[in-house]
Amino acid sequence: MLANRLSCLEQAMRDHGLDAVALNPGPSLFYLTGLSFHLMERPVICLFAPGERPRLVLPQLERAKAEAAGLDIALHAYGEDDASRAEALRGAAAEMGLAGRKVGVEPLRMRILELRLLEAAAPQASFVAGEAALSAIRILKDEAEVAAMRQAVAVAEKALEAALPLARPGMTEHELASELTLQMLRAGSDSELPFPAIVASGPNSALPHALPGERRLQPGDLVVVDWGAAVQGYISDLTRTFAVESLEPELNRVHEIVQAANAVGRWAVQPGATCGAVDQAARAVISAAGYGEFFIHRTGHGIGLEAHEPPYIRADDPLSLAPGMTFTVEPGIYLPGRGGVRVEDDVVVTPEGGQSLSSCPREVRIIA
Amino acid sequence: MLANRLSCLEQAMRDHGLDAVALNPGPSLFYLTGLSFHLMERPVICLFAPGERPRLVLPQLERAKAEAAGLDIALHAYGEDDASRAEALRGAAAEMGLAGRKVGVEPLRMRILELRLLEAAAPQASFVAGEAALSAIRILKDEAEVAAMRQAVAVAEKALEAALPLARPGMTEHELASELTLQMLRAGSDSELPFPAIVASGPNSALPHALPGERRLQPGDLVVVDWGAAVQGYISDLTRTFAVESLEPELNRVHEIVQAANAVGRWAVQPGATCGAVDQAARAVISAAGYGEFFIHRTGHGIGLEAHEPPYIRADDPLSLAPGMTFTVEPGIYLPGRGGVRVEDDVVVTPEGGQSLSSCPREVRIIA
Repeated sequence: MLANRLSCLEQAMRDHGLDAVALNPGPSLFYLTGLSFHLMERPVICLFAPGERPRLVLPQLERAKAEAAGLDIALHAYGEDDASRAEALRGAAAEMGLAGRKVGVEPLRMRILELRLLEAAAPQASFVAGEAALSAIRILKDEAEVAAMRQAVAVAEKALEAALPLARPGMTEHELASELTLQMLRAGSDSELPFPAIVASGPNSALPHALPGERRLQPGDLVVVDWGAAVQGYISDLTRTFAVESLEPELNRVHEIVQAANAVGRWAVQPGATCGAVDQAARAVISAAGYGEFFIHRTGHGIGLEAHEPPYIRADDPLSLAPGMTFTVEPGIYLPGRGGVRVEDDVVVTPEGGQSLSSCPREVRIIA
Repeated sequence: MLANRLSCLEQAMRDHGLDAVALNPGPSLFYLTGLSFHLMERPVICLFAPGERPRLVLPQLERAKAEAAGLDIALHAYGEDDASRAEALRGAAAEMGLAGRKVGVEPLRMRILELRLLEAAAPQASFVAGEAALSAIRILKDEAEVAAMRQAVAVAEKALEAALPLARPGMTEHELASELTLQMLRAGSDSELPFPAIVASGPNSALPHALPGERRLQPGDLVVVDWGAAVQGYISDLTRTFAVESLEPELNRVHEIVQAANAVGRWAVQPGATCGAVDQAARAVISAAGYGEFFIHRTGHGIGLEAHEPPYIRADDPLSLAPGMTFTVEPGIYLPGRGGVRVEDDVVVTPEGGQSLSSCPREVRIIA
């Protein structure tokens, strides 16, 4: 499988006019090699070029881990001093013939640390945005990838149903988020979750990226719960919105509108439809109901090894959907100071249309 | 408190010859403003300069969150299109007068994405490594910071004691790691843990950064458990090594040596001692016992808002320790293919010497 992915990368490099690609640890490196390292003060850089064996520059203390993976990759290990680090990278760059070449990097992933080291190791090379070459291969998920995401959705849904009976008025956001996290681990999530679960109550629910705090759930609150699990590195990302005891009529109606926008967005998913068309379909529902100005983000984002990756489901994106693409559909309405509603599902494009990986109830449920 | 930290930053900028500092989300931004955002495809950049109000460039959908924080910071929000993003950053850079200035950035934190945007927004400015200015203020922890770390250690120790009775031969590494994670959340950790807990058994324990897998604990195994919690963003980072049922005599002796090196390393911590002296003290024990070549990493690293930050406890580091510095002491011996031992504590430098924040038993305990 990895050999197949490497040959796809070689093709993508040619298609995008890149002589080589340099990656630091993250989803693309994992996708191509199965290797994962944390981003720390000791850099790890892997070099790829068509027809060449990949070369991995890494700290000596990670060497045994890389060897244990049994990959056909040349290892350039360095010690704890800066000179040894520069020397290892210089050696790898020279063996790879990076001088004067055009090397693709990932600007959203690579840090200035690695960029400066690469520039010093291969002074004649130019380092350019290469994410298009990588997303071209990662954006179409194969069956095994979709199966892992399906399982990540199942784990998240099982965890929600286990955590909900414990939710009650007076509980803090943080307590509910911890319970949900715990249930995801118990249900079989990878121990590294894709993102910390969001529980945002009352006015906090009007902030799309609120972090769970010490606020206690109060009668009349909207509660946005945005959570996800990971299985074999592949993630799920769901949102449901709850009411504590009861809701005032307008907030109830807002939930109905968002739920309808979510359904219409999912129905708009078809091979050949553009990302923009899906966004516009969901947005039209909210605008028609008079809440357009309170839907302050795009309709969704790709998911896979990352919680946010291409395709981005935004109004101005002309990319055509194709079978194997996976992304969220997550319209929302946020009324500042009062509360917010978001309903988020994970969708895969199939030859027959969009299929939701998630199926837990979307209607507003009551915490009492 | 934040105002005080900002004035420390202004002094540090002067000391390090910086006209301004540009930060993306992470520990330094949190330290200075209390704000946290995830690193995503929508960049967030905060600009600081002496005598100027800080300026925060951020996506529109994060605006309410930033406003709710009630900080004396100018907000430059951008929409979902690239032009609006470039315009917001250009405006902030112009108001701040970045043209032709020397701007410090964090190479271990800032991505090429933000660097290229900054270069476009302030073409005459130079962007240089500014981490020394930030670590100068963050490296000395105040009482509240040490208190939070003490609590993060207490949470981690409580979680270990709750998880250990469930550990038994035949359990997978992943199962034990999940149980430990769950107990940390239950014991009151922040929901965002500092790193995924490591449980590495048998030959895997010889890999310092192994990830927990499906291997089952077997009689005779060494099991390295490296875990930590977070409280108010401040972390703990501990390691203990266990034996499954029994250990062959050499592995038992290796544990005694590492435990002695840990103690000697902690005793070497004194105000005025160098980082190098602490490393050498711990290393001398292991070398004297004949295992020097199997201690393949430095003795420790700073901890605080990050799991790895200055000071670094390595042989060649001449930095003198001062009261308020906090770091790990974690010598180890790794025998390839057989197993490894690490014993890690968290230490704060006080005027009277080093004080360990952690106190759970260091001797090898048996899983049976």
